[in-house]
Amino acid sequence: MKQVVTFLLIGLCCASVSAKTPKNIIMIVGDGMGPAYTTAYRMFADDPSTPKVESTIFDRMLVGMASTHPHTKTGYVTDSAAGATALSSGVKTYNGAIAVDVQKNSVQTVLEFAKKQGRRTGIAVTSQINHATPAGFSAHNESRHNYDEIANSYFDNRIDGKFVLDVMLGGGWHYFIRDDRNLVKEFKQAGYQYIDDIEKLDEAKTGQPLLGLFGDKGLPWALDSKNNTRLPILAKSAVTQLENDKGYFLLIEASQVDWAGHGNDIASAMAEMHDLALTLKWLEQYVANNPDTLVVLTADHSTGGLTIGANGVYEWLPASTKSLKASPEEIAKQLLPLKQRWTLASELLGFELSQEELQQIIEPTDSKTLFRAICTIIDNRSYTGWTTNGHTGVDVPVFAFGMGAENFIGHSDNTDIAQKVFELLKAK
Amino acid sequence: MKQVVTFLLIGLCCASVSAKTPKNIIMIVGDGMGPAYTTAYRMFADDPSTPKVESTIFDRMLVGMASTHPHTKTGYVTDSAAGATALSSGVKTYNGAIAVDVQKNSVQTVLEFAKKQGRRTGIAVTSQINHATPAGFSAHNESRHNYDEIANSYFDNRIDGKFVLDVMLGGGWHYFIRDDRNLVKEFKQAGYQYIDDIEKLDEAKTGQPLLGLFGDKGLPWALDSKNNTRLPILAKSAVTQLENDKGYFLLIEASQVDWAGHGNDIASAMAEMHDLALTLKWLEQYVANNPDTLVVLTADHSTGGLTIGANGVYEWLPASTKSLKASPEEIAKQLLPLKQRWTLASELLGFELSQEELQQIIEPTDSKTLFRAICTIIDNRSYTGWTTNGHTGVDVPVFAFGMGAENFIGHSDNTDIAQKVFELLKAK
Ligand SMILES: [Zn+2]
Ligand SMILES: [Zn+2]
Repeated sequence: MKQVVTFLLIGLCCASVSAKTPKNIIMIVGDGMGPAYTTAYRMFADDPSTPKVESTIFDRMLVGMASTHPHTKTGYVTDSAAGATALSSGVKTYNGAIAVDVQKNSVQTVLEFAKKQGRRTGIAVTSQINHATPAGFSAHNESRHNYDEIANSYFDNRIDGKFVLDVMLGGGWHYFIRDDRNLVKEFKQAGYQYIDDIEKLDEAKTGQPLLGLFGDKGLPWALDSKNNTRLPILAKSAVTQLENDKGYFLLIEASQVDWAGHGNDIASAMAEMHDLALTLKWLEQYVANNPDTLVVLTADHSTGGLTIGANGVYEWLPASTKSLKASPEEIAKQLLPLKQRWTLASELLGFELSQEELQQIIEPTDSKTLFRAICTIIDNRSYTGWTTNGHTGVDVPVFAFGMGAENFIGHSDNTDIAQKVFELLKAK
Repeated sequence: MKQVVTFLLIGLCCASVSAKTPKNIIMIVGDGMGPAYTTAYRMFADDPSTPKVESTIFDRMLVGMASTHPHTKTGYVTDSAAGATALSSGVKTYNGAIAVDVQKNSVQTVLEFAKKQGRRTGIAVTSQINHATPAGFSAHNESRHNYDEIANSYFDNRIDGKFVLDVMLGGGWHYFIRDDRNLVKEFKQAGYQYIDDIEKLDEAKTGQPLLGLFGDKGLPWALDSKNNTRLPILAKSAVTQLENDKGYFLLIEASQVDWAGHGNDIASAMAEMHDLALTLKWLEQYVANNPDTLVVLTADHSTGGLTIGANGVYEWLPASTKSLKASPEEIAKQLLPLKQRWTLASELLGFELSQEELQQIIEPTDSKTLFRAICTIIDNRSYTGWTTNGHTGVDVPVFAFGMGAENFIGHSDNTDIAQKVFELLKAK
């Protein structure tokens, strides 16, 4: 044990990874998942009938925290593109950059390096697969907004003659089936199997590369998905597909924690966290059976300025964040055409609206305002605070388990995490 | 290293401390110091002339995070009394409780246990010494608000015939020199030396118990103190005074991080963090020379719902939090009697006020409103967000260095930290 503490005290980082290399490395990004999200999830998941607050899977896996600032040219608060680039390549860059540095030169990512080494590679995300985080591991572009170019590059680019990604699971019909180019067709012609129904993902043939798209852009919210979950399905399928003698590198992203944060929507945020927790639980079992696998989970930044407690009240009441039958966005959509909103609203929210709350959801005449009214009702009931619809700069938690997890103990910069993964990939 | 990871993965806590016992244990509480405070401090301390964001002393010492919720009877958001009781005794209790459980029975604290074992004991804090956190280690009371009772107990209580505390440094004239009882006099008669000027603290005689009070209630803000610092002076003096063959237990508290958070005063928060950082730097050197010492630092909770970035802006600009010549409270006090406020305000704030900002500080006719106006100007310039004038429930960082530090790696509940300190005190 002494060795670890010495390691912490002298602040070494990259060069000091333990010697053994894991066969499989799974990196997970909880997009926007700052420390208030993992803490709130503990309260959300707590069984209120016992005096003890049960610890979560996140608690079991916590090893440290990470700083997330981008290149200081951009300032101290990162976006998901610069965050992904730091985590994938170990290089600080400007906000918006997809695996390019501040001079806009491409930088190698851990996924690409793993591919070069003969490993299989994959991404499994709840956003479109060409969104900032997966793109930051699998593409290079001066701007995250060049979605079509990034999608094209998934087909056009090669690493040592091979496609960058063996498995791509997430959303993105909008970008992969376009008027000007049908990438799905091209992938199929190149030998990929294509699945567009998440319920049929278990029919995928192993040993054949896989493209699975399940939404126009992102997937539906966890709250609007069957059994309120979908990331574990993507993760299991990706792992099954990627397993091989030479090992694999897989990026998993709980993409929509961030989207819920941008919307200041605590109910969706907690449901997305639960979807991630279920994924981790499955991976915990998987690593128990496959101890040559490393799982590292962190966030690229926090989103929304979420706080547990607000407006002077020393309390957080998750009940009203747990009872929803659909996402606030979906509830707003369903309520908007109705004149009498009370009955359906109470049914879908899972609690009876007060007269004052009813007033708040009767007034809006557009779905965005109605969505905000619904979120505000839940915030007020739960004592949830927000300071922004953007990102914040707070350090994020780092979780690791499996072979090599001890290398991530303590404070890391986000770039240190990539450096350590590079070292572990090399270590063999 | 494997052993540590196993330790993390199987989630053991209390029983598994490493065998060797440190001679001296220093616990430090950064009151209200949630993760946004340590992160913001990195940006505050960053040298803007270099592209790198330098890591801080906190980064070097980070080992994990802790959950802070009180007994669920009280809910999920703690106050400093329940937080101190958890950290001192390992027992969850209700908000307001000073080392008593939910049945209001006294619970033994690590400080008391250390005393029982023959160690010297001390507290060095920037609040009054009978405030919630130090009281939670040194007294028992059903309410933190019974300040006089708590102060009395410091004199009246005995542990195996000895005074609870050999060294008491902080504020508190208001409570220790009262019309109904002069505790300073009583302590002096009992053999304590008394010092009421922090500049004379280095004249204290070693080997004689010490009471040092340097403020009516709390000490002046760091920003209003000589060289903007005072906690390192208290810490050094306490350590010097406590050193002995049998070892010591010392509680240090950066009490006013919390007070700055309650005031949503980012400039004072950062100055209080700097005062704590200087204390840690001195302790880092001390532990290098005294490797049989353990230092554990955490927070009891976060305060204010501080966020780094706010209102949609992806930026945090510490410049306006660093240039102050006095605390915002002191600046408000000095400006209030003036009709022409621009010149002195710009001088004391260290930046030139815009016309709009000038308008904001001209209008207030009471010091509280003027104080708020000053803080708001700094918030707007720095993009600092707040959601409450109370506490929030986010997990807090845990830092440890010196002998036994490895026991605090990973996630802890605040009660686990006390349990581990108890085990380490027993371990010999
Ligand atoms: Zn985002
Ligand atoms: Zn407080």
